[in-house]
Amino acid sequence: MARPTPLSGFPEWLPEGRVVEQHVLDVLRRTFELHGFVGIETRAVEPLDQLLRKGETSKEVYVLSRLQEDPESPDRGGRLGLHFDLTVPFARYVLEHAGHLAFPFRRYQIQKVWRGERPQDGRFREFVQADIDVVGAGELPYHYEVELPLVMAEALGALRDVGLPPVRILVNNRKVAEGFYRGIGLTDVEAVLRSIDKLDKVGGPAVAELLVAEAGASADQAQACLELAAVAGDDESVVDAVRAVADRHGATHPLLDEGLAELGALVRAAAVRAPGVVRAELKIARGLDYYTGSVYETLLVGHEQLGSICSGGRYDTLASDGSSTYPGVGLSIGVSRLVSRLLGAGLVRATRAVPSAVLVAVANEDDRGRSQDVAIALRARGIPVEVAPSAAKFGKQIRHADRRGIPFVWFPGDPAAEDPARVADQVKDIRSGEQVPADAATWQPPAEDLWPRVVPAEG
Amino acid sequence: MARPTPLSGFPEWLPEGRVVEQHVLDVLRRTFELHGFVGIETRAVEPLDQLLRKGETSKEVYVLSRLQEDPESPDRGGRLGLHFDLTVPFARYVLEHAGHLAFPFRRYQIQKVWRGERPQDGRFREFVQADIDVVGAGELPYHYEVELPLVMAEALGALRDVGLPPVRILVNNRKVAEGFYRGIGLTDVEAVLRSIDKLDKVGGPAVAELLVAEAGASADQAQACLELAAVAGDDESVVDAVRAVADRHGATHPLLDEGLAELGALVRAAAVRAPGVVRAELKIARGLDYYTGSVYETLLVGHEQLGSICSGGRYDTLASDGSSTYPGVGLSIGVSRLVSRLLGAGLVRATRAVPSAVLVAVANEDDRGRSQDVAIALRARGIPVEVAPSAAKFGKQIRHADRRGIPFVWFPGDPAAEDPARVADQVKDIRSGEQVPADAATWQPPAEDLWPRVVPAEG
Repeated sequence: MARPTPLSGFPEWLPEGRVVEQHVLDVLRRTFELHGFVGIETRAVEPLDQLLRKGETSKEVYVLSRLQEDPESPDRGGRLGLHFDLTVPFARYVLEHAGHLAFPFRRYQIQKVWRGERPQDGRFREFVQADIDVVGAGELPYHYEVELPLVMAEALGALRDVGLPPVRILVNNRKVAEGFYRGIGLTDVEAVLRSIDKLDKVGGPAVAELLVAEAGASADQAQACLELAAVAGDDESVVDAVRAVADRHGATHPLLDEGLAELGALVRAAAVRAPGVVRAELKIARGLDYYTGSVYETLLVGHEQLGSICSGGRYDTLASDGSSTYPGVGLSIGVSRLVSRLLGAGLVRATRAVPSAVLVAVANEDDRGRSQDVAIALRARGIPVEVAPSAAKFGKQIRHADRRGIPFVWFPGDPAAEDPARVADQVKDIRSGEQVPADAATWQPPAEDLWPRVVPAEG
Repeated sequence: MARPTPLSGFPEWLPEGRVVEQHVLDVLRRTFELHGFVGIETRAVEPLDQLLRKGETSKEVYVLSRLQEDPESPDRGGRLGLHFDLTVPFARYVLEHAGHLAFPFRRYQIQKVWRGERPQDGRFREFVQADIDVVGAGELPYHYEVELPLVMAEALGALRDVGLPPVRILVNNRKVAEGFYRGIGLTDVEAVLRSIDKLDKVGGPAVAELLVAEAGASADQAQACLELAAVAGDDESVVDAVRAVADRHGATHPLLDEGLAELGALVRAAAVRAPGVVRAELKIARGLDYYTGSVYETLLVGHEQLGSICSGGRYDTLASDGSSTYPGVGLSIGVSRLVSRLLGAGLVRATRAVPSAVLVAVANEDDRGRSQDVAIALRARGIPVEVAPSAAKFGKQIRHADRRGIPFVWFPGDPAAEDPARVADQVKDIRSGEQVPADAATWQPPAEDLWPRVVPAEG
């Protein structure tokens, strides 16, 4: 077998990179659990017809077939595809298990998803997402739309000390946009949103043309939409700014009032709970059409061109079984995109790539049992340890530890040694070279050496 | 959308079941890391031709195609399949990244795998495996064949206190079998192993017939093979028992001697390190033909009909890039099979299905901020907390906690209350009904209530 080459779009980390990814996942999980989110996993596959309910993603789905399956099989309806996000499977999970869940149901879910897209920087075919959602039965109070982005702000903030740049959570509210558009007389709200969504890519004049051509807007209406999209701010003054644009264009609508009250409450709470993190930007549209209230995107400060690393919103009708609907709000972190940038831009590093804090040396193969006894004693007190692979010269065993970043090498003593200095166990810090007598029943490495840590790359 | 129905063979746990699975995974991970195993993940897909190198699994592979892909595409060689175990991907990972890894390389890997098999009890189409392997570059000392099953014994033993039954690790050595077969004049070793592998299913007389028909054995040779397969034992006497069978049939072969020395060393070490766990059974064959030394299977005592929950062995030639070969030894736990049995047989339970130890009540919606302040103060000290979904009557809020198994409900005080008893915060243990004044800056729940725990179902 020749040396295999990587598959484009299927990222795989070396051990040190995996230490970083695992740390990110551990921090996210802990934050989510501290906030009472229940961890679930769903199967990787869903029936193809369920995956294709949202038409726009149909190209991205990987379809499964069994190798021996008849390709002419008419059983296309029963075919399975790999999930391309965690929202569709979660909606299905809620419907399937509703009788066993307590609502509002707070869940987090950290899993791989797959999309048959053309790979690009930060865009993969297989990647990890970390989602939180709260789903109600029949109704879901607005305050969850304030709470959830703040949970994500806390989770991402908890990664600051390992080298993650600050984040900026951009928020908007579909009701504000829809109320404003209707208030100035535009009725094809989805067409307006689709045009506004292109603002950053094609610029204002081109969007104005799109609004006229595709959303049936007059030049004045297009101008009004662009003025609304230009509004942004970190505090409640953003509500006044929207009001000013609305007044200028004579826009009034109950949805606009409702949306502004919500957006104001979100910005106000965020200014207290996560100062400087949340910013209202009225141009944020989010392509997916199932959002009905707040929408969120998240940029990494200094890495804005990476795109959003955490997005989501409020949806009223994603899950429904005819008799009940389950409105929800959620956000999803693109973990692979985040980790790929942390590693690729050299922002973080692991203090070592292996768990072991200690390598126990082996004086000769007949004494391996003595080295294992030391390892067992250390592990019993929670210290990660491995035993040297062979009774090579000690210099070689020390290099073995050094190559792995293992900070300590332990030399078991020899109770029968003639030299009294060799009777007791000794442990060497191979960074300083300091070697001291030690007892496996009591010795403790410094806390910062116990496990691999993830630290800023400059640190 | 009608209520969805489960997909056979794709297990999914309710929140309480997921608490159990997550606990199992956490315990395995911690044990593996204490032993210095590096955690890696590989992508879920491999090139189809790599997955099909072992012919016997070809029926089980799920092949991927993109929805818009031309089914007539001649690009079959570039097609991807979902991995059906973690050994094949690991072998590829080692070859691909050999230049960046330090050997012997100790790795653990916990991931889902997929097989398009007919689902049965304990046999799934999607399931989680937890593997450990040590792989050397060019060579790998025998002592790892002793170490790795003992790591698994420790990992599974660490689950005893949550209700996992004891395990029995059954070991054999391919060299013993091959040396014995060659020593009595049989040359088609694989055919003999395939026949012996059916012993438990079809019984001795049928296997004897198979040996004659398919392995070219005489009646005497078949009898000798069955006598060897009948040997079993917990200590080194098993070596003498094999010797006795070999002497009776005049079997001598260098491989037999080598294998017996290894098997003896394994049983001897296991008797010290994990008394009563490891048992040599000379009938253990393992179907896969790449094992070259020790082989392992693991039974759950009292649940033997479930089949092996942890299997593996020594392989010399799984990974090779022409210039180097990478011999290894490893075992794989069938986590889903294990968890499915723990849950299905009612052996374990979680003390609750949600992380939250505390529900902070909300007196009225205008006071939600005060409840959130309490939650923030408690979380800052590592206590998982959620805030009540609405300012319903306190009785309803308490029932909300009760339905989720949340043990404590916190009532924020009202600094402006006229009743002095209502000024301070109070916390109620809803199991005992006891309610006491409490300070969010210092209050601590009992350690056993802090997080959901997994306990024996009787406990």
